[in-house]
Formats: sequence, C-alpha cells, structure tokens
Amino acid sequence: MTHPTTITAAPGVPFVDVVREFDAPAAAVFRAHTDRNLFAQWTGPRRFKMDSVDLDATSGGRWKYVFRGEGDMDFSFFGVFHTVESNALIIQTFEFNLAPNQVGISTTTFDEVNGRTRLTVHEVYPSVEARDAAMASGMEHGIIEGYERLDEILAR
Amino acid sequence: MTHPTTITAAPGVPFVDVVREFDAPAAAVFRAHTDRNLFAQWTGPRRFKMDSVDLDATSGGRWKYVFRGEGDMDFSFFGVFHTVESNALIIQTFEFNLAPNQVGISTTTFDEVNGRTRLTVHEVYPSVEARDAAMASGMEHGIIEGYERLDEILAR
Repeated sequence: MTHPTTITAAPGVPFVDVVREFDAPAAAVFRAHTDRNLFAQWTGPRRFKMDSVDLDATSGGRWKYVFRGEGDMDFSFFGVFHTVESNALIIQTFEFNLAPNQVGISTTTFDEVNGRTRLTVHEVYPSVEARDAAMASGMEHGIIEGYERLDEILAR
Repeated sequence: MTHPTTITAAPGVPFVDVVREFDAPAAAVFRAHTDRNLFAQWTGPRRFKMDSVDLDATSGGRWKYVFRGEGDMDFSFFGVFHTVESNALIIQTFEFNLAPNQVGISTTTFDEVNGRTRLTVHEVYPSVEARDAAMASGMEHGIIEGYERLDEILAR
C-alpha cells in the first residue's frame, strides 16, 4: 500500500517540510536511507538514472549521489552528516552542484508506531530564494515518486 | 583600530547576518578561525573561560568548543565542516548543547580588499524560534566582544 506524501513550503520562509508514512518498521526505512545499494534503488524520479552513490552515514561522514540526466548532463547532490542515530534521526547538509555554495541542512526523523513508520523531513535552505528555486525545479515530483519506489523496496 | 560589527536578525526568517571588517589580510583572519590555539584566544565574551577546542577545518572534519560558565555549568558548541576553502570560505553546521538536535548552518566568507578583510557570516537556524532563542541568549554581545578580542590578536 502507498500513502500520500505531504510537502509544505510556506511562503517567506526557507523551509520545506515533508511527511510520509511507510508500512514498514523504522529500522527498514532507516536502512533504505543509509545503505548505498538500497538508497540507489529508490532515490529520485524513475526517469533519472542513478550514476553513483557514496554514503558514509556517520557523524562527519560524507555523502554524494550523481544522476545521469538527458544528454551528457550530470546532476549531483552532496554533503556531510552532522548526526546519525540508528533507526531514529539523520541530520545532514546538502548542496546541489548547479547551485554551488548554497548549502542547506535537513533533519530526517523516523518514528515507528505499530510497525508503521512516520518519516518527517525538515529542510532548511540558506535563503528563501534558494528554497523557491529548488521547489521550482520539480523536486516535489522527485520526492513523491522516490517514496513510491521506496514502498516497492520495503514490500519485497 | 576596531570596526563596528553589524548584526541583522530580521523578523520572521531564521537568519542571523554578521558583517565585520578587520585591519588584516584574509589569510590572518582565516587562520584565526581554523587554528585551534588562536581560535581559543578570541571566541566568545571575555568573562567565559574557554575550556577546550577541537577544530578539524576540513570538509567532513568536526569542531567543538566548550565554555566553562559560572559554577559547574558547561556550554558547548559543535558541528561539522561542509566546505573549507583556504582564506576564502567556511560552511559548517552548528549545534548548542542546551538545544539538542536544533542544528543550523553557517557560511563565513573572507573578502580581502587593500589588505583589509571584510568578514561576512550568514547563519541559518532550523526555525525562527531557534533563531530568536539564540538572539535572546545574548549572542550579540559574545560576537561583538569576540571580534574585539580578535582585533587584539591580529594587531600583535
């Protein structure tokens, strides 16, 4: 079963908030966020090919993933982990290669109730303009389709 | 000579912006931000004793400093570095031990013109409330007095 994804980007503040439930325990949802092979199978929209994933999910560890887009265009996202608490919490920085030095920070929490996991993501951008540009790029579609792909992995 | 410190915290957004000039080259101001022994000599208000400083100013490196307050109270600040470009740019996360998991990100730029350095700091908090709490804690005084202490080090 797939659940709705709630994405909130209130005007005038540099935040994006995402809430999504999954029919799986927190440990499984957390693992899909920290195991590079699993992560590569669900992150982003289906039409983007994941080219590479580096993922060292420890405090001070670095992460990076690269999408191969149409033609020779590559898109990459990367950052460092500030906090990683197993099955519970990930706080990490994020940067998009086409917006250099515009670095944000996201807090992802995994709350398990009765075997189901409520995932919440709080993204903070360095400016309202950077947040608006990210939203205008079609990130909502990528988030929603990515979580549908994650449902499929969790159901296996 | 000491220059004014401009601190801006506009209502309704989670930012603090600081601008300060120093009569020293960017390399000297940068070094005072990344050399742990120098950093310990100027950071924070004079009445706080710096108890320890860890500072690994590399991408993925961690930093932490601890103030010994009145009585047995310790205050610590810590985070990880996302970007470190020598004499030019530092992007790092920050967390205060008394506000756990409220993690922000700051971008510090060092611009040298005619041997003088213009330092700009853009801090982004995870919420407007977290920003307001930090401002209410007296951080402005600590920033201003810290930079006065930094002037003294740069003049040596």
